Amino acid sequence: MNAPSFIKRLLRNALHPNERARAHRKAKETIELCHALLSERGEVSGAALARETLAAYRNLPETALPSFFDLLVSEFSPDPAELAEAYQDYFAQPSPDGLIRLQRAIEPPRQELFRRLNMAAGGTATLVEMREQLLAAIKSRPEWKGIDADLAHLFGSWFNRGFLTLERIDWRTPAIVLEKLIKYEAVHEITGWPDLHRRLEADRRCFGFFHPALPDEPLIFIEVALTKGMSDAVWPLLDLDSPVADPQAADTAIFYSITNCQKGLRGISFGNLLIKQVAQELGREFPKIRTFATLSPVPGFRAWLAAALEEPAATAAGRAAAEALKRLDEPDWFKQASVAGRMQEHLMPLCAYYLIHAKSNGEPVDGVARFHLGNGARLERLNWLADTSEHGLQSAAGLMVNYLYRLDDVENNHEIYVKQHRVVASPNLKKLARECPLLQPPGKR
Amino acid sequence: MNAPSFIKRLLRNALHPNERARAHRKAKETIELCHALLSERGEVSGAALARETLAAYRNLPETALPSFFDLLVSEFSPDPAELAEAYQDYFAQPSPDGLIRLQRAIEPPRQELFRRLNMAAGGTATLVEMREQLLAAIKSRPEWKGIDADLAHLFGSWFNRGFLTLERIDWRTPAIVLEKLIKYEAVHEITGWPDLHRRLEADRRCFGFFHPALPDEPLIFIEVALTKGMSDAVWPLLDLDSPVADPQAADTAIFYSITNCQKGLRGISFGNLLIKQVAQELGREFPKIRTFATLSPVPGFRAWLAAALEEPAATAAGRAAAEALKRLDEPDWFKQASVAGRMQEHLMPLCAYYLIHAKSNGEPVDGVARFHLGNGARLERLNWLADTSEHGLQSAAGLMVNYLYRLDDVENNHEIYVKQHRVVASPNLKKLARECPLLQPPGKR
Amino acid sequence: MNAPSFIKRLLRNALHPNERARAHRKAKETIELCHALLSERGEVSGAALARETLAAYRNLPETALPSFFDLLVSEFSPDPAELAEAYQDYFAQPSPDGLIRLQRAIEPPRQELFRRLNMAAGGTATLVEMREQLLAAIKSRPEWKGIDADLAHLFGSWFNRGFLTLERIDWRTPAIVLEKLIKYEAVHEITGWPDLHRRLEADRRCFGFFHPALPDEPLIFIEVALTKGMSDAVWPLLDLDSPVADPQAADTAIFYSITNCQKGLRGISFGNLLIKQVAQELGREFPKIRTFATLSPVPGFRAWLAAALEEPAATAAGRAAAEALKRLDEPDWFKQASVAGRMQEHLMPLCAYYLIHAKSNGEPVDGVARFHLGNGARLERLNWLADTSEHGLQSAAGLMVNYLYRLDDVENNHEIYVKQHRVVASPNLKKLARECPLLQPPGKR
Amino acid sequence: MNAPSFIKRLLRNALHPNERARAHRKAKETIELCHALLSERGEVSGAALARETLAAYRNLPETALPSFFDLLVSEFSPDPAELAEAYQDYFAQPSPDGLIRLQRAIEPPRQELFRRLNMAAGGTATLVEMREQLLAAIKSRPEWKGIDADLAHLFGSWFNRGFLTLERIDWRTPAIVLEKLIKYEAVHEITGWPDLHRRLEADRRCFGFFHPALPDEPLIFIEVALTKGMSDAVWPLLDLDSPVADPQAADTAIFYSITNCQKGLRGISFGNLLIKQVAQELGREFPKIRTFATLSPVPGFRAWLAAALEEPAATAAGRAAAEALKRLDEPDWFKQASVAGRMQEHLMPLCAYYLIHAKSNGEPVDGVARFHLGNGARLERLNWLADTSEHGLQSAAGLMVNYLYRLDDVENNHEIYVKQHRVVASPNLKKLARECPLLQPPGKR
Repeated sequence: MNAPSFIKRLLRNALHPNERARAHRKAKETIELCHALLSERGEVSGAALARETLAAYRNLPETALPSFFDLLVSEFSPDPAELAEAYQDYFAQPSPDGLIRLQRAIEPPRQELFRRLNMAAGGTATLVEMREQLLAAIKSRPEWKGIDADLAHLFGSWFNRGFLTLERIDWRTPAIVLEKLIKYEAVHEITGWPDLHRRLEADRRCFGFFHPALPDEPLIFIEVALTKGMSDAVWPLLDLDSPVADPQAADTAIFYSITNCQKGLRGISFGNLLIKQVAQELGREFPKIRTFATLSPVPGFRAWLAAALEEPAATAAGRAAAEALKRLDEPDWFKQASVAGRMQEHLMPLCAYYLIHAKSNGEPVDGVARFHLGNGARLERLNWLADTSEHGLQSAAGLMVNYLYRLDDVENNHEIYVKQHRVVASPNLKKLARECPLLQPPGKR
Repeated sequence: MNAPSFIKRLLRNALHPNERARAHRKAKETIELCHALLSERGEVSGAALARETLAAYRNLPETALPSFFDLLVSEFSPDPAELAEAYQDYFAQPSPDGLIRLQRAIEPPRQELFRRLNMAAGGTATLVEMREQLLAAIKSRPEWKGIDADLAHLFGSWFNRGFLTLERIDWRTPAIVLEKLIKYEAVHEITGWPDLHRRLEADRRCFGFFHPALPDEPLIFIEVALTKGMSDAVWPLLDLDSPVADPQAADTAIFYSITNCQKGLRGISFGNLLIKQVAQELGREFPKIRTFATLSPVPGFRAWLAAALEEPAATAAGRAAAEALKRLDEPDWFKQASVAGRMQEHLMPLCAYYLIHAKSNGEPVDGVARFHLGNGARLERLNWLADTSEHGLQSAAGLMVNYLYRLDDVENNHEIYVKQHRVVASPNLKKLARECPLLQPPGKR
Repeated sequence: MNAPSFIKRLLRNALHPNERARAHRKAKETIELCHALLSERGEVSGAALARETLAAYRNLPETALPSFFDLLVSEFSPDPAELAEAYQDYFAQPSPDGLIRLQRAIEPPRQELFRRLNMAAGGTATLVEMREQLLAAIKSRPEWKGIDADLAHLFGSWFNRGFLTLERIDWRTPAIVLEKLIKYEAVHEITGWPDLHRRLEADRRCFGFFHPALPDEPLIFIEVALTKGMSDAVWPLLDLDSPVADPQAADTAIFYSITNCQKGLRGISFGNLLIKQVAQELGREFPKIRTFATLSPVPGFRAWLAAALEEPAATAAGRAAAEALKRLDEPDWFKQASVAGRMQEHLMPLCAYYLIHAKSNGEPVDGVARFHLGNGARLERLNWLADTSEHGLQSAAGLMVNYLYRLDDVENNHEIYVKQHRVVASPNLKKLARECPLLQPPGKR
Repeated sequence: MNAPSFIKRLLRNALHPNERARAHRKAKETIELCHALLSERGEVSGAALARETLAAYRNLPETALPSFFDLLVSEFSPDPAELAEAYQDYFAQPSPDGLIRLQRAIEPPRQELFRRLNMAAGGTATLVEMREQLLAAIKSRPEWKGIDADLAHLFGSWFNRGFLTLERIDWRTPAIVLEKLIKYEAVHEITGWPDLHRRLEADRRCFGFFHPALPDEPLIFIEVALTKGMSDAVWPLLDLDSPVADPQAADTAIFYSITNCQKGLRGISFGNLLIKQVAQELGREFPKIRTFATLSPVPGFRAWLAAALEEPAATAAGRAAAEALKRLDEPDWFKQASVAGRMQEHLMPLCAYYLIHAKSNGEPVDGVARFHLGNGARLERLNWLADTSEHGLQSAAGLMVNYLYRLDDVENNHEIYVKQHRVVASPNLKKLARECPLLQPPGKR
């Protein structure tokens, strides 16, 4: 089953009536198995019936999925009458037993269904995939939100940090896991096995969280370079032919890529925990490493900038910047030293301003900034021409950022961030932001 | 912390006021950490705060537990006002979002607290122990039922069959696991390492379910003897000096002991699944083994018998039986052939009757019978003088039973048992039961 | 260190005197460490001195190796005087003690040196590499044969079958091992990771022998295809895009590639054992598989044929064949049906004759035939246009052979082969061989 | 097969002629298999014939072993004629090839036989046991020395340090290994599983060397206590009920027991390497531990003392000592403070003298002293009433010794010990030795 094509079909909704009837019949058959699995018989049959039901689900043509989800809603939701009765009883005479009964009345039978499906081998993987399917279409089918809530609730419980293992991934890792890195990597594409091999050499580290029920599937993984000094550009890290450095000489760990692998686990967050635990691991293995920082993209910068420049600038500096920045769409602008120099002058303050002050609902507009600042990191340094890949130029004019993780400060930084809606940034970055040409002259603010 | 002494203190309730105040203060401090763990700060601090809270809980003197549980009830239960509002909104205008909100309003914050506690190493073990503590006292403190329900709900999700591994336990198993068998064995006491070693020889098998978060703790284990023919007595199986038989010559697997290990997991059922999966494993390893049966105690027989004999018997046979059975309390009665012979005549039909017909709420009075019949086993054979240990004589006059597991029949047997309230038994046993001297003469029934 | 370039330098022998002196000095220093390692001090220092000596050897420039080997000969060979004395004593008065003393006198101190070097981590790998270096140059330096004999003797003892583990290699194998397959594969080149992945799919098996001291290094590995019927061409097996077949439907296991990985273990034979043990493993996993056969190249065929055709043919058939076979060097001759047809007529009998009758010292001229026949396999079938790669056409005009392994027959086949110098072949192949056009007419033989 | 009873029978030599004939026939049959295994057939048959031969050997009644060993001597020794010829050729014209040929001529075919036996599963274990059998009787059968030499030579190669793994043994170790500790412990008997458990608690460490071919068999193991200060008595370490100390608080590691497990590996030395490697491991795990020392018995002290006291003493002090020491055989002498006090005065200097000066062939008389001093340890301290078990009193009047391992000094200490025949001892111990009452007055020396 393939999510995108599934959505397309769904949206086109262009099934022939016969085909639709057949799909509905298949969905109905699978739902019958689900009912059996929830019955007494399901209890005694052990995993056999779970296996059968799971296989039936996996064999559903994707055209049958909408019917299947619809039936999950109509036939496995809480019974309103029972719920109302339990509620009335409880509020008439509150008691622990009454509350327990009310809780049971409100838990959709789907949850127990999913738990029983999970008894069969491969159950967890299939349920995670089911949610991926569901999420791919949920915008157009809000009535399925309850299914999603049930799966999310179960996954939140099952994928509890206490059940995950942090595992180092290196060249000794089974190929079946390594190929997943190539497949999933979301920040800096891995171009193949030689690229992967370079990222697992002695001067690199890679760690992932794994769950015992998904042994070949990283849930999330992070790539780290052990360097001297804080990296100011990503291309040296991605260069396949770069010499392998001595990790014992490193003083800095640069987290240059972090990827959530399972779309079906969206919203079950691991990244925060992973970064800190990896920092601790590295600190133990390399006592000389004192600096833990990311080298991160600024994905929303140019979109924000374009919008910002559309408004007539209030200052001469702003107008000059707007004029200069028109050349951003010229190919290879950054290769001409003079052009690049002028651009840098304008872009650095703008980007600092963007990261520190551009907010939406009190939080930074930039998604990567939200993630790291929410984890308690500090906005440390802006790096010019740090990612001159096409993607890097298009999204952030080649700029990248270091977020600094000082383990002793993260709790405090986090509180400042959450309670005062304030971005924790280095003095240099704050100074840069104050030079932003878009700022109105002091008197007018 | 030790549950029984904890109960005693609780019941005696004999704490000095100073001690009580101190205990309450400790409980309060731990509860403060629980609140912090549930806050924003808990989210970002990773496992550190969970670790700290867990340690505080573990260090609570047992005298502080009642206060701690009371606070878990008073401070981490659902908010009635919020619940009422969510309910009104939902019923005014039902929607998926409204239902999700209602579900959230009714889930006690305790559940999230427990999930966060679980993030720290050893969290799962501590929560299982917490429930053991709780259950030991819950009869006298019904207001704690909500805590129990929350833990039971979580454990039902966490200890899902899909997350358990079936592991063979043998002489290659780490000692740290093996000592648990000695500690937990609940049916036929293991007297020490030599006894354990004999039970793990080539003509035996032992399997257990394990959970990844409790690697050194079997959740349940089962002991099997590979025999020729169906065992009719347990003492040869328990004889340390019995010669080790050739397992390849066996045609029968006798399940002679099954033990649930974790009191804190009461009600989370594994036994049903374990027996069947072990039968499958053994069938694969030993294709010659065709019979899978238990050799089980009849724990409730003599208690039931004593009550039954108190009523004046309606038949001469009944009176004769009552008279003869008075000798059951004589020491070593079973060693005199003539006495034993007469006893057998009376007891066998009585026990068959007990197992097949003695019911309470439609289910067999005998707990072991309920378990195996509920699993779809068949009551197969009654064995005379099968367990002449003191316990065996006291509880069942030395009688034991074989329950037969035919994998092809268990689903069907289970349905008969559940739907028709009928005990599936072998023709022989049914015939024996019809000879029960307590039965009224045919005309009167 | 790189063997070929080492040989070249050695043969060119073109070192500048200064460089030669420096190399000799380095070799001398390492030899001093070897002496220390063999002394009392070596005994007590544990692995530390071994580590140091090993490191010194590994750091030797390749220009120093000849000196190093020369010194191993001159300074670590048996002492002739001591040997003579021990011999005289023993033959004057034979005794167990005398024999033991003689054995000790004749064992070169090198052997103990190598054993002590092996104490350090990585010792075994380095010694295997040392022999690879040695073998690369030994033809021009016969005085080093004693070193080779010592290493071969040790390796024969260390790499005893009892110490090897047979391991399945699949997509779960660590990448560090998998990349070795790509590197070492000697029969049908593996073009990269996708090619490797295809060879490890569900319808394939790969096994290797490993030694505990070289955990990441296969000693030998074999690739197997699970097929219906005996494969008659190799290109379908090497096709990356071929669909993955259901292994449960297979009736035949085709060994299509077997590679010895370690040049330093030349002469320590594993292949014989590997094929038979893999056949047993596969027979256990797939009871339906009854045929175990290779699909093998005929590496020496065209070289032999060229020589054979140089002699004036004794028969008209021979002359016709010689005439026809001139087209073998035309490009793509095999793509023209008519040409290919005539070729087949001539080549099949010639190749059958070659495999069965072309011998040297009583053994088949063809190396692959020697190997499989010596293992007790039977020459089963000749396959036309089975390998039309350039290499396959150049060496064997596209022909390949199936050698059949019937486990019940291998011992007997082997005896026939060894004692009667007779090639065990299928009736069809024997018949083909009798049609060979090079044969003189019956009357003349 | 059980070595002692085997020896007894051998020595009694009391077999009935029929039985003897039968035993000889069995031995002969096994030897026939050995010949087959060495033949061509053995080469091709893979491990099957090795398995068969091994099984035949294992099934030999012990009465057949002498015949078996005799046949190993008579039929698998070097051929004198071939040896003589190879020798003549070699000395007539020395060449590498000639030397290799001579080496082959002198290697008994037994060695290749043993190597081929090793190919079957369990081969290594059986060969080690074979040598144990052999050694138990070799004193009375010197003609078997050649067999022993061959096995010892192979084992020296196979059990090379580079092939051993150092493994920590703790309560997580499989029971099948742990029971071997109970069985083999040679210094301070392990009385059962509770005793063993105490020796594996958090304040203890146990390590062993293992060989991959004998995974359940420690070759040697060492028990270590982590203490504050250097232990001066062994009974606190052996006390089952002693509280478990915090290992992080320890500053000293006391090696209080080291046991060679395999009699069949006599003379293949591991102890030296084990102590040093364990010291390194512990140093890494516990940086606060600076002192590594043994607490060792003085097994030969009282035997030496008895002999020394038989000679008439040259000094008054000597006579007084002799007089006082007569009470050593009184039961519980050490419990009377006054007696013990006087004894201590006499015994401490005597024992110091014994350890430092009592020599035989230039080496200390005491076997334990030879071992540790030969490893480069220093004789550090004598401990009064350190082992008051019956064995401790009988062998050493309750005295024990600490040998100190300073890793930086061991090489140097070893050289002093080997080259100058001098015992490296602490100043205190040297001073004590000078006070020995047996010493003649200064003027007379």
